[in-house]
Amino acid sequence: MKRTGPHHTLIAAVRTFVKKRALLRPNQQVIAAVSGGADSMVMLHVLMELQRLWKLRIIVAHVNFSLRGKESDGDERFVHSAAGRLGLPFYSMRVDAAAEAARSKCSVQEAARDLRYAFFESLRQSLGADLIATAHHADDNTETMLINLLRGSGVDGLAGIPPKRGAVIRPLLCVTRQMIEEFAEERKIRFRNDSSNGTDDYTRNLLRRRIVPTLMRRVNPSLHSTMMQEAETFRTMAEFLRGVTDRSFRECVTGTSVMLEPFRRLHLFLQQSVMHRMLNETGIETTAAAITAVTELAGRQKGTVVELPGGWCAERTADRILLRNSGNAAPFRYELSGPGTVTGESFTLTLSKGKARRNKRTDGSSMEYVDAARITFPVTVRSWQSGDRFQPLGMTGRRKLSDLFSGLKMTEQEKHRVPVVECSGNIVWVAGVRLDERYKLTDSTTAVYTLTVHHHGKKDGRR
Amino acid sequence: MKRTGPHHTLIAAVRTFVKKRALLRPNQQVIAAVSGGADSMVMLHVLMELQRLWKLRIIVAHVNFSLRGKESDGDERFVHSAAGRLGLPFYSMRVDAAAEAARSKCSVQEAARDLRYAFFESLRQSLGADLIATAHHADDNTETMLINLLRGSGVDGLAGIPPKRGAVIRPLLCVTRQMIEEFAEERKIRFRNDSSNGTDDYTRNLLRRRIVPTLMRRVNPSLHSTMMQEAETFRTMAEFLRGVTDRSFRECVTGTSVMLEPFRRLHLFLQQSVMHRMLNETGIETTAAAITAVTELAGRQKGTVVELPGGWCAERTADRILLRNSGNAAPFRYELSGPGTVTGESFTLTLSKGKARRNKRTDGSSMEYVDAARITFPVTVRSWQSGDRFQPLGMTGRRKLSDLFSGLKMTEQEKHRVPVVECSGNIVWVAGVRLDERYKLTDSTTAVYTLTVHHHGKKDGRR
Repeated sequence: MKRTGPHHTLIAAVRTFVKKRALLRPNQQVIAAVSGGADSMVMLHVLMELQRLWKLRIIVAHVNFSLRGKESDGDERFVHSAAGRLGLPFYSMRVDAAAEAARSKCSVQEAARDLRYAFFESLRQSLGADLIATAHHADDNTETMLINLLRGSGVDGLAGIPPKRGAVIRPLLCVTRQMIEEFAEERKIRFRNDSSNGTDDYTRNLLRRRIVPTLMRRVNPSLHSTMMQEAETFRTMAEFLRGVTDRSFRECVTGTSVMLEPFRRLHLFLQQSVMHRMLNETGIETTAAAITAVTELAGRQKGTVVELPGGWCAERTADRILLRNSGNAAPFRYELSGPGTVTGESFTLTLSKGKARRNKRTDGSSMEYVDAARITFPVTVRSWQSGDRFQPLGMTGRRKLSDLFSGLKMTEQEKHRVPVVECSGNIVWVAGVRLDERYKLTDSTTAVYTLTVHHHGKKDGRR
Repeated sequence: MKRTGPHHTLIAAVRTFVKKRALLRPNQQVIAAVSGGADSMVMLHVLMELQRLWKLRIIVAHVNFSLRGKESDGDERFVHSAAGRLGLPFYSMRVDAAAEAARSKCSVQEAARDLRYAFFESLRQSLGADLIATAHHADDNTETMLINLLRGSGVDGLAGIPPKRGAVIRPLLCVTRQMIEEFAEERKIRFRNDSSNGTDDYTRNLLRRRIVPTLMRRVNPSLHSTMMQEAETFRTMAEFLRGVTDRSFRECVTGTSVMLEPFRRLHLFLQQSVMHRMLNETGIETTAAAITAVTELAGRQKGTVVELPGGWCAERTADRILLRNSGNAAPFRYELSGPGTVTGESFTLTLSKGKARRNKRTDGSSMEYVDAARITFPVTVRSWQSGDRFQPLGMTGRRKLSDLFSGLKMTEQEKHRVPVVECSGNIVWVAGVRLDERYKLTDSTTAVYTLTVHHHGKKDGRR
């Protein structure tokens, strides 16, 4: 590799950025997410330079999404051999992003993103590594902020791409794509066409290829640094607002009701923020119109009712605003002290001993196998509760059931009929919908329970 | 005029908007700002419809900026005759926007905007009218928000165009340009090419003609309503944040020093907001870098000094952060108990009796005439103080001297050498820079004082 000097501007910029944002500490183990494109290959190069300063241990990780056949496999081999030349450990995962997208009813891009982060995080945990480095740069941040503004995502969307979130760091966020490309050319860093820069995200590509270049030429040549600065301002602001909203929420909200007395003392902005959060946590779709209508109830007559999405309504009582869902089935709760069957108003659920058939496939809907060693009795079978979270099979981190239900476009009635199987306070199975990652069969599984659900009369809880 | 029905969607939308935002109350007198373009001619038409519901009295006002010769005069005649046909009072002002721009060293567009609002406001006051209606619409709001984001204006810029600010209302803000143009065509409303839609604002025109149409076609067909919604969210948020910042500012700041003890308890966002305001009110240019550096002083060692723009610096003392400007001339203060001369370190200023020569022109720099009836002695001649405000000649409303100085690109040294002439707590003349509107000669002036200033040695206080 040819060097133009040890203090190339890109390296210097990244080093300053990493120091200022405290992205790295000495002796850390960093997983570099490398697709093989220019951005991630340059990041790998930069991390190798920073390695000396911070005494890092670098691991290369790659996800093969199997979206472009031999080309995808070529990317994987390319990254593998680059890691080899640098003497770095290499890990890869091969997944079918298209199939996962079909399965979880989201876009291929969303599925790929979820799979990618889930793989890097599980790799990090199993290797005991500290950080995951991704190659997002200033142009990505500008595009993200513009897309979010255009779609109306509020202050959180304008916070852009964070330099650090959890274990994920973005050391290249301070530099532009142009700087990265020039650096790659200058140092003769080889790369392959980056699959994440493909044409499947139409909006991002439109901004990248047409809108942003025009804006930079004609409006603000320093657009990327302006937007980085703005993102930081909005990030600090969003964090502050979250804290203030938290306090107000705790002061005013109990379950699904808002006490009017403290609520009325809040600034309109906080009233709306508190309502937004309450609707969200209850699993009600948070349209601007719904938030406004519910907030305005505080000034309306006792007994006034506002209709909300999904069969919900909000009522102004003497001293509070109450959320109700008259259309719901009554909440239910049963306990199993050992294997057996529970029959509810609309379902029959059975937990039975089985054999360790690891490779046996279920349809993931009316039947699932779970690792018996992880189950302790009593096992609870109950209806969904606001705030329920679990770790969906194949994911790291926990998700809200309300988000899962919304993703499946389930009605309120359907959501409240789904039996939720719980054990020691953890959700094991959202019956007929999804297993929890923590209860799946593994290499060490020796005993298995089989869970089955049958819905009576009406159609399946899942649409 | 042909009618398609009494409840045309545009009229209905505006009526709902006006009611919801309480833009109008019954029996109000409204000055319609009419350029003669499609937007303002449609607004005039809509106001005529609303007139019946709210029993409004409508007055038509037009500003002829003399920028396009006979065309400008044609616009004025066109609006005049439209007002005549509708039986409405008509007022117009003819100004030379280009000359005013040269005089106040700003763009022709800025000068035109200032002159327009100043004329409407003075007309409102002299007629005792309630409101000024301008024809800004949803497209204007979208463009404003995007321009502000691209230039990095923070949350205030994203608050967009307010439906109401002071006496100014924007009843068409809820409708798009397309709706306005269709309405004009349908009702055969005649209009002339609107000078405010001209090509002199390059950025706005780029967005209007190229960027926004692409974004609507490809990203969000409801862009304008999304942005209206976002603007409202950000407006409420900005108002809330202003309130919180106010309280923190009062708690921590005395003059140009910040008490560390309460300051440290604030969230980083509020610390930055408080510092932003303190720098701004002291007349220091508020770059993001300066705000960050000064805020970070709270965590630095006693005695640490940060250099700021304009010869200012901030010092971390034992219990506070202090702003100082070591480069300044010493502050000065003299009193005149009657006509006479004051000689300071760098200037000589004379106040002398004169004759009422209303049409005599001054160069507005080293000599000015003031209405003697408005002067009471003692008259103070002093150096500029942080927070000084006055009403510049030709304007309504008060402006900060710091803004005026910044506009003139004066250095800190220059600002602190300018003698400020004060009378009964009001600024009469920023010597060599600008007269106050309230002291100018008027038709009723009978006695005149002449003010002159001479700067010693160094160049004039003005660059």
